[in-house]
Amino acid sequence: MITHPSFTVEPWSLRETELNLDVLAQSESVFALSNGHIGWRGNLDEGEPHGLPGAYLNGVHERHPLPYAEGGFGYPESGQTMINVTDGKIIRLLVDDHPCDLRYGQVLAHERSLDFRSGILSRTARWVSPDGRTVRISSQRLVSFTQRAVAAIVYEVEPLDGPTTVAVQSELVANEQLPRVEGDPRVAAATESPLVAEESFAQDTRLRLVHRTGVSGLRVAAAADHLVEGPESTRWTAQCEPDVSRLTVTADLVPGRPLRLVKFVAYGWSGERSLPAVHDQVDGAVAAAISTGWDGLVAAQRDYLDRFWAGADVEVEGDAQIQQAVRFALFHVLQAAARGENRAIPAKGLTGTGYDGHCFWDTESYVLPVLTFTVPDTVPSPLRWRHRTLPAARERARQLGLAGAVFPWRTVDGAECSAYWPAGTAAFHINADIAMAAVRYVAMTGDEEFERHEGLDLLVETARLWRSLGHHDAQGVFHIDGVTGPDEYSAIARDNLYTNLMARQNLRAAADVVTRHRERAEELGVDDEEAAGWRDAAARMAMPYNESLGVHEQSAGFTHFQRWDFDATPPENYPLMLHYPYFDLYRKQVIKQADVVLAMLECPYAFTDQEKERNFAYYEALTVRDSSLSAACQAVLAAQTGHLRLAYAYLGEAALMDLDDLEHNTRDGLHIASLAGTWIALVAGFGGLQRHLKDGRADLLGFAPRLPEALSRVAFTVAVHGRRLNVDIDQTRARYRLVDGDPLQVLHHGEPMTVTADEPVDRPLPPAPVLPEPQQPRGRRPAGRPSPEAAWTEPQD
Amino acid sequence: MITHPSFTVEPWSLRETELNLDVLAQSESVFALSNGHIGWRGNLDEGEPHGLPGAYLNGVHERHPLPYAEGGFGYPESGQTMINVTDGKIIRLLVDDHPCDLRYGQVLAHERSLDFRSGILSRTARWVSPDGRTVRISSQRLVSFTQRAVAAIVYEVEPLDGPTTVAVQSELVANEQLPRVEGDPRVAAATESPLVAEESFAQDTRLRLVHRTGVSGLRVAAAADHLVEGPESTRWTAQCEPDVSRLTVTADLVPGRPLRLVKFVAYGWSGERSLPAVHDQVDGAVAAAISTGWDGLVAAQRDYLDRFWAGADVEVEGDAQIQQAVRFALFHVLQAAARGENRAIPAKGLTGTGYDGHCFWDTESYVLPVLTFTVPDTVPSPLRWRHRTLPAARERARQLGLAGAVFPWRTVDGAECSAYWPAGTAAFHINADIAMAAVRYVAMTGDEEFERHEGLDLLVETARLWRSLGHHDAQGVFHIDGVTGPDEYSAIARDNLYTNLMARQNLRAAADVVTRHRERAEELGVDDEEAAGWRDAAARMAMPYNESLGVHEQSAGFTHFQRWDFDATPPENYPLMLHYPYFDLYRKQVIKQADVVLAMLECPYAFTDQEKERNFAYYEALTVRDSSLSAACQAVLAAQTGHLRLAYAYLGEAALMDLDDLEHNTRDGLHIASLAGTWIALVAGFGGLQRHLKDGRADLLGFAPRLPEALSRVAFTVAVHGRRLNVDIDQTRARYRLVDGDPLQVLHHGEPMTVTADEPVDRPLPPAPVLPEPQQPRGRRPAGRPSPEAAWTEPQD
Repeated sequence: MITHPSFTVEPWSLRETELNLDVLAQSESVFALSNGHIGWRGNLDEGEPHGLPGAYLNGVHERHPLPYAEGGFGYPESGQTMINVTDGKIIRLLVDDHPCDLRYGQVLAHERSLDFRSGILSRTARWVSPDGRTVRISSQRLVSFTQRAVAAIVYEVEPLDGPTTVAVQSELVANEQLPRVEGDPRVAAATESPLVAEESFAQDTRLRLVHRTGVSGLRVAAAADHLVEGPESTRWTAQCEPDVSRLTVTADLVPGRPLRLVKFVAYGWSGERSLPAVHDQVDGAVAAAISTGWDGLVAAQRDYLDRFWAGADVEVEGDAQIQQAVRFALFHVLQAAARGENRAIPAKGLTGTGYDGHCFWDTESYVLPVLTFTVPDTVPSPLRWRHRTLPAARERARQLGLAGAVFPWRTVDGAECSAYWPAGTAAFHINADIAMAAVRYVAMTGDEEFERHEGLDLLVETARLWRSLGHHDAQGVFHIDGVTGPDEYSAIARDNLYTNLMARQNLRAAADVVTRHRERAEELGVDDEEAAGWRDAAARMAMPYNESLGVHEQSAGFTHFQRWDFDATPPENYPLMLHYPYFDLYRKQVIKQADVVLAMLECPYAFTDQEKERNFAYYEALTVRDSSLSAACQAVLAAQTGHLRLAYAYLGEAALMDLDDLEHNTRDGLHIASLAGTWIALVAGFGGLQRHLKDGRADLLGFAPRLPEALSRVAFTVAVHGRRLNVDIDQTRARYRLVDGDPLQVLHHGEPMTVTADEPVDRPLPPAPVLPEPQQPRGRRPAGRPSPEAAWTEPQD
Repeated sequence: MITHPSFTVEPWSLRETELNLDVLAQSESVFALSNGHIGWRGNLDEGEPHGLPGAYLNGVHERHPLPYAEGGFGYPESGQTMINVTDGKIIRLLVDDHPCDLRYGQVLAHERSLDFRSGILSRTARWVSPDGRTVRISSQRLVSFTQRAVAAIVYEVEPLDGPTTVAVQSELVANEQLPRVEGDPRVAAATESPLVAEESFAQDTRLRLVHRTGVSGLRVAAAADHLVEGPESTRWTAQCEPDVSRLTVTADLVPGRPLRLVKFVAYGWSGERSLPAVHDQVDGAVAAAISTGWDGLVAAQRDYLDRFWAGADVEVEGDAQIQQAVRFALFHVLQAAARGENRAIPAKGLTGTGYDGHCFWDTESYVLPVLTFTVPDTVPSPLRWRHRTLPAARERARQLGLAGAVFPWRTVDGAECSAYWPAGTAAFHINADIAMAAVRYVAMTGDEEFERHEGLDLLVETARLWRSLGHHDAQGVFHIDGVTGPDEYSAIARDNLYTNLMARQNLRAAADVVTRHRERAEELGVDDEEAAGWRDAAARMAMPYNESLGVHEQSAGFTHFQRWDFDATPPENYPLMLHYPYFDLYRKQVIKQADVVLAMLECPYAFTDQEKERNFAYYEALTVRDSSLSAACQAVLAAQTGHLRLAYAYLGEAALMDLDDLEHNTRDGLHIASLAGTWIALVAGFGGLQRHLKDGRADLLGFAPRLPEALSRVAFTVAVHGRRLNVDIDQTRARYRLVDGDPLQVLHHGEPMTVTADEPVDRPLPPAPVLPEPQQPRGRRPAGRPSPEAAWTEPQD
């Protein structure tokens, strides 16, 4: 049984050489195009067959009641679901009156390819219709990085075996019929036909639909215009109904003389603006796209991506699949973030409706680090979105009886949508994750303006939260009780180590930032006493540690729980949360995803090397990786503690999460954070990238490069203080090269050195420490990489 | 604003002297009649106005999907709701074509009275119709204790100011329209019109309806027959439709010549039996009732209650309201339990739909102790019901990965219906509560046959649960992690003291019982090794204790949590769970209901007197009594630790929970456990009743009587080993008198003594220890009793 599509291994593209209808939904996710504002799943041009049709606009959602069989105070009443907006990618084809549907007739050839350098999804197919007519179909599709509201398609059809009459229907379709959703009828109602028609237009080659969501009241407009090239027989008409606007082009074709259609689509939405305003906005965007033309859009797209790759590319030698995977990953991370413009980066980007299109903590903890070091100018936008939602977060804090701001665990518009508080509201660490993403961005870019405004607000409000959430005990130790850390197989614990460490950083960074911007701090009513309270709480923060085991505790008492009985857990019972109740998972030593390990990644200065080694080994034996967020963190700590083969295996898992559909849910959208984790595993793992804090601010970048046997070379570039530093690692040395700018001090395996733009500096790689191989829970050892020199051999049990 | 009905204070009845429509629903609950099989709320005869119409049959429920915005493994998918069955109590009246509806016209007088000795609800009214005609209406209603399927009504109407034509419509009505329920439409669908018509019959004076529930598939039949007495003009006809069967009696009346109708109603239901079988069953029951006649039913009811009161009455001198309240309480406890016959005793009995008609742990922990000491022959039935649900409980244990049986937190038919697992599934203590209720019953009655069968099964399966739920740590201490104790403001804790102590008793009792019934134990596969494992776990059970405070911990680490900020909590924010999120309640020292205090009540031998005093004072300061289950336990421990005035105040709270509607939800049904708590507060509190365990079995009853100043006398009778012991306490001495049977050894304030049936034994009361007054959270001191000699003075803050 094939459960995921298979692709050829190529350095700069993802190519599928035949169509497998069983895994169509997965391929729609990996071939999704987006610019962070518009998202188009990789659906076939003709609309059907499909796994999940999808056209999304960042922020466009519908609300629905959240049902509780037993409610509670502070439970969010309203959920939000990203909806499928007007679909502008549909181009249906009739060949002699036979609709082109690849489930019927015969597919002679079918190839799709996503080019990471051009940003174009190409498709070619040869198809024999049920009555025997053979046609060639080709299309190219882009969602523009440079014209944010615009997407475009070139569509060509040509008969191969004689004259044919074709009809091509290019459409805008609202309220597309979706695969049926089980469950609460009120939730289904919110997503099944979410759009109410406001305006429908079709004239000459121009189409337009304007709709409004029923409850959330968002106005969504889509417009299209077309260029048609074909033989003299070519004719077209345009028609519209409330939910469809359609251009129908007919032509009598002969081999060698294709019909070619260029479709320019523009989108706009607003919760505030009037119908004429939104209507004009999309018409204007289409007109601009027509004026730029297809070739112009293609050239601009290429240019945009050339600049991106110059700063972001990671070269990997020795494992062609990883080389491809990291570029696939970076391309999709860019697509999720490029033009969001003060909107969230959802967990699935705009590639599918998984997690209802919600944004979680992984944006700040996994995606933003990668963007900060590669395309830092994309980072303020998602953080400004968080900043824009501060009023909702302050209101949520007030509702929970806390000071400052409490950001939602999952949301589209800033309101909490998590309906299970032990793994939602209680996961307060998201607040530090957001605050420290702002600190990281400022530390790496020196963007003082951002720090003074958004940064300071985010830090102060989160510091206030932490101070009110925790309390001092009789000995003066500061505890944070009743919270849930990153590991979702534990909940409502005391002193989660990750949370406490992040809160400590958060409190210190807030205390620092208010000393740098006293006027703004005064505006927020922060005085020296308040800042002193933050510093004190940070200084006295509890750090649970089991002396007899010599390891940190994930939370107070964690190491005293019963160990999960891994030997009695058959492979088919993973992921555990689908086969065991939370009550049992929560009270045993079993870990869904990196928690202490993530703490060591995020706050490395808080641990000695020996503590890292012991902690890593201890938690490695308990971590089952039922979350896609885990492997990348484990890769980094495995690399840092010298377990390079293990790190390499985890890199493979993070990198192939979607390409190999490891969690069997790529159909719902890509795991953007795991894709970002591919970069993290390579750069923070094998590159050993680490920010070194001085008084809570990052002043120094360190590297501790070391490659696994299988990789002969890894090279990457990081943005730092407006400069670009290239690091090129092989088995014996690392070469540091400043692409531009003033000399830069960095650390190489702890030793300071200065890199200039004049000439590269080479440093030898020290040998890795030799430590016993950490053990994973039975059956949860990561699959090794298949290449012979990288073979990950399963030790005997 | 009157928020509860007001009643005259009388020793043997509850009398309401005027009708207050604002609090109609509350009065319907307190005037509800039941025999544990049939429940009729105290609705007005004519059906409207009503607060909540209600006719219930123990066990008749409908299923509905349980909605989860975020589901989880092991979450129950199906909920159950007790439904309003065919209403047999409706007798509508038309006076010269004007329907008698007390919202219109003028009510000259209206009195209702529930007599605890006759078991009859009487009503008299004088009403002026909108066109000026005055009538007297009277009715008497009973639900028979002796003929389980039968209820009966005598209804009389008489004009007072001249000739009148009346029509009386006596009905059986299915699918009565109920007040609208908000929330999930699928749940509303399950309760709004739950009955599907199968048969409808009306002939002469006989009526019958047979229905079936849509999803749970339970067949419900009701039949009625009538005796009509009136002037010669009296005529009647019977008619039926699918949901109503109706006898209409018309008569031309003059003053002094009333129309009198006697209505006999019979109910039956089955999930298995055929329509003819159920149909015959109710017809037969009605025929038997007609044969007994109204006077016969009344005499049998009186006789049944005379025997009940002989064994159960508690006499209280010095506080007439408490005297009334304890009889009201005992009457309703009896009504909930009398003829359930292998069905549950729901939390609200059959007095309303609160908690969906579910049965919880309070049946075993509050209701069964009272029944065990007063009407012990009612106790096996609800325990046999638990025993009958063992297959479902074993299946639930299997689903949760545990051994033995896991009883549901809330249920009608034995399947778990709790949709919030931290306060449902995690509250494992219910399993020990059930097991120890069986042990208590056997210990007090010597019912070996019950012990050998139901008792042994319940003990073995729960012991297996505890052994698998807990684990030994490296030092060999046995811990039970991740559970929730009685206090619902804490959850998912380690080593809840109450749970651990009850589990310890449970494990020991199981190990004991298998040695007494080795053949039956072998049938269950229990060998000596397994029993030894139970004894070991019991012996090494963790008992969390804070050495520096010198108090037991409610759960491990509880005393280290931050204290709830009671000073910042305004009175209107109670109950806290309606104003603060669980996340905050769970992580702070704040207690909804007795937990350690309940542990000291249930397992007194585990604590020294000094520990009891310190624990009581410590937890008293944290307990807000947002549960009706708390006051009675606090009364007992207050009395045991010498705080007699405080105990008296808590007795008042438990006793008046429903009569004064202290929690503002008596409209949904009575708090049967709190009613039982009235007896517990008096008998275990001021009587100091305590079972003294020897090797896990109760061999000895102890008393430590002591009265608060305000009470001059408390006397009660307890059933013990087939005998009845009367204890009569005044301010200076206790008099012990054996009503019948062989001499009995008991303890008086710890000193052994023998009581014989020949003559009473007097013993002086030692003075109470003098200890500082415990403090409650600000504003949560219980209201004192109002009588001058019992004045509970608020100390200065």
